Amino acid sequence: MTLLQPGSHRAAELVDDDAVVQAMLTVETAWGQALGRAGVASAEQVRAIAAAARCTPSPPGLVAAAEAAGNPVVPLVRELRARVADPTAAALVHRGLTSQDVLDTALMLLAARVLERLGDDLRTTADALAAHAHRHRHTPMAGRTLTQHAVPITFGLKAAQWLTGVLDALGIIIATRAGLPAQCGGAAGTLSLLAATVPDPLTTARGFAASLDLADPGLPWHTRRTPVTRLGDALVTVTDALGVIAADVALLSRPEFGELQEGPVAGRGGSSTMPHKRNPVLSVLIRSAAARAPLLAAQLHLAAAQAVDERPDGAWHTEWPSLRSLLLLVATAANQAAELTRDLRVHADVMRRRAQNAAADLLAERDGPGAGDVTGYLGVAAALVDRALARHAAVAVPA
Amino acid sequence: MTLLQPGSHRAAELVDDDAVVQAMLTVETAWGQALGRAGVASAEQVRAIAAAARCTPSPPGLVAAAEAAGNPVVPLVRELRARVADPTAAALVHRGLTSQDVLDTALMLLAARVLERLGDDLRTTADALAAHAHRHRHTPMAGRTLTQHAVPITFGLKAAQWLTGVLDALGIIIATRAGLPAQCGGAAGTLSLLAATVPDPLTTARGFAASLDLADPGLPWHTRRTPVTRLGDALVTVTDALGVIAADVALLSRPEFGELQEGPVAGRGGSSTMPHKRNPVLSVLIRSAAARAPLLAAQLHLAAAQAVDERPDGAWHTEWPSLRSLLLLVATAANQAAELTRDLRVHADVMRRRAQNAAADLLAERDGPGAGDVTGYLGVAAALVDRALARHAAVAVPA
Amino acid sequence: MTLLQPGSHRAAELVDDDAVVQAMLTVETAWGQALGRAGVASAEQVRAIAAAARCTPSPPGLVAAAEAAGNPVVPLVRELRARVADPTAAALVHRGLTSQDVLDTALMLLAARVLERLGDDLRTTADALAAHAHRHRHTPMAGRTLTQHAVPITFGLKAAQWLTGVLDALGIIIATRAGLPAQCGGAAGTLSLLAATVPDPLTTARGFAASLDLADPGLPWHTRRTPVTRLGDALVTVTDALGVIAADVALLSRPEFGELQEGPVAGRGGSSTMPHKRNPVLSVLIRSAAARAPLLAAQLHLAAAQAVDERPDGAWHTEWPSLRSLLLLVATAANQAAELTRDLRVHADVMRRRAQNAAADLLAERDGPGAGDVTGYLGVAAALVDRALARHAAVAVPA
Amino acid sequence: MTLLQPGSHRAAELVDDDAVVQAMLTVETAWGQALGRAGVASAEQVRAIAAAARCTPSPPGLVAAAEAAGNPVVPLVRELRARVADPTAAALVHRGLTSQDVLDTALMLLAARVLERLGDDLRTTADALAAHAHRHRHTPMAGRTLTQHAVPITFGLKAAQWLTGVLDALGIIIATRAGLPAQCGGAAGTLSLLAATVPDPLTTARGFAASLDLADPGLPWHTRRTPVTRLGDALVTVTDALGVIAADVALLSRPEFGELQEGPVAGRGGSSTMPHKRNPVLSVLIRSAAARAPLLAAQLHLAAAQAVDERPDGAWHTEWPSLRSLLLLVATAANQAAELTRDLRVHADVMRRRAQNAAADLLAERDGPGAGDVTGYLGVAAALVDRALARHAAVAVPA
Repeated sequence: MTLLQPGSHRAAELVDDDAVVQAMLTVETAWGQALGRAGVASAEQVRAIAAAARCTPSPPGLVAAAEAAGNPVVPLVRELRARVADPTAAALVHRGLTSQDVLDTALMLLAARVLERLGDDLRTTADALAAHAHRHRHTPMAGRTLTQHAVPITFGLKAAQWLTGVLDALGIIIATRAGLPAQCGGAAGTLSLLAATVPDPLTTARGFAASLDLADPGLPWHTRRTPVTRLGDALVTVTDALGVIAADVALLSRPEFGELQEGPVAGRGGSSTMPHKRNPVLSVLIRSAAARAPLLAAQLHLAAAQAVDERPDGAWHTEWPSLRSLLLLVATAANQAAELTRDLRVHADVMRRRAQNAAADLLAERDGPGAGDVTGYLGVAAALVDRALARHAAVAVPA
Repeated sequence: MTLLQPGSHRAAELVDDDAVVQAMLTVETAWGQALGRAGVASAEQVRAIAAAARCTPSPPGLVAAAEAAGNPVVPLVRELRARVADPTAAALVHRGLTSQDVLDTALMLLAARVLERLGDDLRTTADALAAHAHRHRHTPMAGRTLTQHAVPITFGLKAAQWLTGVLDALGIIIATRAGLPAQCGGAAGTLSLLAATVPDPLTTARGFAASLDLADPGLPWHTRRTPVTRLGDALVTVTDALGVIAADVALLSRPEFGELQEGPVAGRGGSSTMPHKRNPVLSVLIRSAAARAPLLAAQLHLAAAQAVDERPDGAWHTEWPSLRSLLLLVATAANQAAELTRDLRVHADVMRRRAQNAAADLLAERDGPGAGDVTGYLGVAAALVDRALARHAAVAVPA
Repeated sequence: MTLLQPGSHRAAELVDDDAVVQAMLTVETAWGQALGRAGVASAEQVRAIAAAARCTPSPPGLVAAAEAAGNPVVPLVRELRARVADPTAAALVHRGLTSQDVLDTALMLLAARVLERLGDDLRTTADALAAHAHRHRHTPMAGRTLTQHAVPITFGLKAAQWLTGVLDALGIIIATRAGLPAQCGGAAGTLSLLAATVPDPLTTARGFAASLDLADPGLPWHTRRTPVTRLGDALVTVTDALGVIAADVALLSRPEFGELQEGPVAGRGGSSTMPHKRNPVLSVLIRSAAARAPLLAAQLHLAAAQAVDERPDGAWHTEWPSLRSLLLLVATAANQAAELTRDLRVHADVMRRRAQNAAADLLAERDGPGAGDVTGYLGVAAALVDRALARHAAVAVPA
Repeated sequence: MTLLQPGSHRAAELVDDDAVVQAMLTVETAWGQALGRAGVASAEQVRAIAAAARCTPSPPGLVAAAEAAGNPVVPLVRELRARVADPTAAALVHRGLTSQDVLDTALMLLAARVLERLGDDLRTTADALAAHAHRHRHTPMAGRTLTQHAVPITFGLKAAQWLTGVLDALGIIIATRAGLPAQCGGAAGTLSLLAATVPDPLTTARGFAASLDLADPGLPWHTRRTPVTRLGDALVTVTDALGVIAADVALLSRPEFGELQEGPVAGRGGSSTMPHKRNPVLSVLIRSAAARAPLLAAQLHLAAAQAVDERPDGAWHTEWPSLRSLLLLVATAANQAAELTRDLRVHADVMRRRAQNAAADLLAERDGPGAGDVTGYLGVAAALVDRALARHAAVAVPA
């Protein structure tokens, strides 16, 4: 269901039902291996579980079963067990885990992939913006505040501000990726069955997390959803930064401005009635994403605050589609933004001409009367561009 | 992508990509017919367009094209035109419409189907609740306020309150369905190309709406999104009403209460670790839906308030996935609620016993000391049940 | 606390703490009168209660007491009883009501005042917009879609669209006002104590509502919050309509457009650094309101869906500040919009010139090449203006 | 206006209109001093500005003026200048700043105070929870998942989970406080007028921030609102953690549970009709706060993504009341939570008895049939408690 979210094909495979099923199976496989390391499952049993997990049950049957069970893990585990011929190995499948352990961990795996992709796209975007900032360090344009002309700026400074927003977001994304935790608290967060199964359950838990390249959370987080809300907040920080860029581009590419333009792509931005028209399609879609992400993240917080009992009665379920939608939305927007910023056409001549024509207004702040050269009143714009570029240079080392 | 929204298979086909494509094609067909009625398209041309529309292009190719164009209508129209052999007929396809006309109208068609389904499910739910209210008109239970025991009520009254909420929602759904409008304003809401094509464009517009069983909006609503926000508000009203029921059921089916229980269904509510456990699955899922619907509807309002120009630059795009998600969510929840209320187990004996045991607290409001029979202090509970049942009887006539 | 919500002084007195206290006292007075009509309180007792209610306890003491009690009604009733000298009369104060009855009804009284004020301001706004639509029926301007030039429109049509949005909102406001209900369900919605006090409790309830010019809800709505959510949705519909106007004005008054301008008011829109600058202050503030209202209304829905038990444990409390904020926000914005639309400067010459200069693009939709007169391609714009004006004329009768 | 937000008197003075005005004056004073350090203002002029700033203009006149100007800074600066007798000193007031510099910085000062207060209250809460975790390390209780009994836990573990949530929030609050930046970008973020006034504007900017105990942001953040959204996200993290505690307490203090109870406070939790009733008032109010905070934070993100131009046309204005409401809400809730957790009554005997009575269900996960001692199946609960306590001990050093 992506037709109404144009561009979502860029990232859908990261979070679609197949990806969820695969991630759940990866979790069960990793758990089997953890039991193996703990000396509870033999090497052969571990291999049998992993082999069964590789034969994915088809999601179609799962959907209705997921409702009956309240979540997709129960029927998937049932299926997985049925595919493990050795009954002793089958009994070890999922042993000590609860549904939420599997789904929480699986969603963190999906998030890890998305955050890594986001890191790449944000770096690409930052590179493009740094190039714009560098190139247009001295390109004057009208500064605008509350819709009206204020004092002159440079397009380099505008790009440097965009860049700084992207670098803020990139920093948060990297830190968030590193903190994504695994989950394995068992039925009620005491690791009860695991403790009855392996000699050192906390070591087993730590190894399980490490094997999935996830963090050890210390305590189970069934009802303490900071990992989820932190992830959501980080994702929104990305669309906040990209949304500003898109809003500026959409505005400055209006015919009345003509200062920016999305790069031409064959077939993009056409109208169904006016073939000549070129709409700022990527900007419009990124803006739309930036308007949706905050409410999806808020949904995660609303759920977090209602995580009663040892595992909650609805709040957890609220997270799943909200988090998936948010991951898809932001991954799509970041990929679009990488393209938007790379191909962006900057009409420096239009910027310069408009600024100079508006000099009387743009220079009104300065003491003394009359117009002048707007490039003579740019404050520390160039120094600020340098600051942003220096920060970019510091993070631009290969990830 | 329904695995993370358990139960969504109940309604997904109403709003999935295929449904969207079909609805858009239905719109283009109806438009061809409207041009036919206006004397602009010959009967044969109308038939040619309708025939081409019946051969749906496969959505896969559409998704990427929808991004390039900014919406799925542009590539679909291109495809449709290519499938109409007669070039004069092909030129009439979509003539006078803009993309937003087609997508807005198509989404209203989807909404119409969902609202009709909702009407059915809400009637079923209302019938079940009326039966509970009737049967338990005299079943006493503890009234609870701010978590503590207050005065006695009857389960019949609780069911009557649920029923009234459902009837409120049903009324709103029926009224909303009747008001869903078609859209055909053309490029900028002036019906410019239509006016250049047919003799009486407003009559053509009216006929177009009527042929789709949609309302004539009077003026185009490209930037006046009351039809969309009203729809969203109506949908949330449904989950508000159902959410209260689900919250009560989830609470009262806790082991410490034991007053209600979801009906047993084979395989439902099982735990992945504790096979004996029966979770209130439907209630939990309905609660989760009720927690999500308000933010989706808010998204529609946020978009509505930003509908600048003659067609907006992002706000409209925000609506599509939000509205679809909301339609799917509410249609699913209403179908689940019909099942929940129909199969609900009411443990009247437990209710009665607990109320009587708590008589000292439940009767404390009444003047005078000591405990007594809680059934002697039920106020006008029975009369309120009658009111709700009378209202139900009045709307229970076949739709 | 209004400094950070500029303009809120326009409406603050409708919903501030004093207004809340007064409304609660009005409710208690009306309740005393209802008991009088039921023959339970003597005329003298009714008068004693009313007299005591006229001496408002000062809110300062109430605030802390409101926390201790969980709501402001408990301490207010205590205070009120203390001020009624006759102990029999004092015992009749609030008899049969619960805190929620008083606060719900009081908030409905506040809402009634706000909706009435809104009705006035929306009528004023509609009148102004109708005048613009009439005057500029033939003023051509560039139609803009997805930020780019589309086909020509008239400013009259734009004003007619704004007008229709305002009329939509006005209709909803009027209907909502008429439906605002009183609340008097007693401790758990059975009218238990009232039924033990008066001969015909439902008649007393009906009379109570009527005496406050509120509707009789049929059943108590302690946990069925349709009256609150419907109110919230209606209020957002207002800012949706006004937000579109404000967004258009803010855009079209940019120096690059120069087609509209907020009316000059001494001291308005000044900059702290550039004295010559004139910011579109009202538009900016109305846009800001339109961006906030949807989440406040969503808050009401979120609460509604969680109204468990006979009176809920937090959901109800969420409503109070959200509803008050929403009432204040919308009342302020509507009053600002009345001023904005009344004083709006329309630069018809700029509109016309720009449209004509862009004729090649604006007329591209039409078959055949080359530019022409944009006023020759306005579709049914004038007829749509007439429709909007006719609708306005029909509701413009004195309220 | 605090009556409808019970408990807000605990923190209102931190963020009310007076606090805002004082903070703005503090900013102007600090700016004067910064100009002094830069050698532009004489010591006497700096003193004259500071002295004038100490005579606060009364807010009442400001409110209407704030609307006329679009923000409260313009009229306040006007007033401040009028109070500086020496015209040269008066001309230096605010020189080089724009309104947004002053208001952004002032709100960061308010935020700093609130975050410091939050730090204190969260530490108090953490101490109380650590004591509960320690004391009840071995107190068994029923683990509950999806409303049903799962496996046994200890109340110590539940308290340890609450504690960990609070420590997560505390860590975020401390980091957020340290990062709160000053703002002084001038009219359009180039420090234009400052650069024309002082020899080294970036050094002046850094000194200005340091003198207010705020961070130097590197670049102005007029349109890059990460500081605001990060603050909002941090605040919600607090109510998320506290909301879980409150939801658990509200549930477990229901009469059907009786496992917890809010501490008795004279006059607290009373009912207006049933004097014996004791409502969990603090829990209910904290839950209500936790349900509101996410949407207020979302509002900040929505605004952040729309920060067009060099200073935006409405998005910025949306922040002010939203941020203030959020600060007030969270500061209130944290103070209430400190009291709630300190005075919480734990009925260990009820917990133990219920767990043991439900042993058959609680032990069903374990292999083998029949009931047993629930304390024999607690997994690593005690070790998890130790982990949480160790973390608490590490942060419990005096701040």
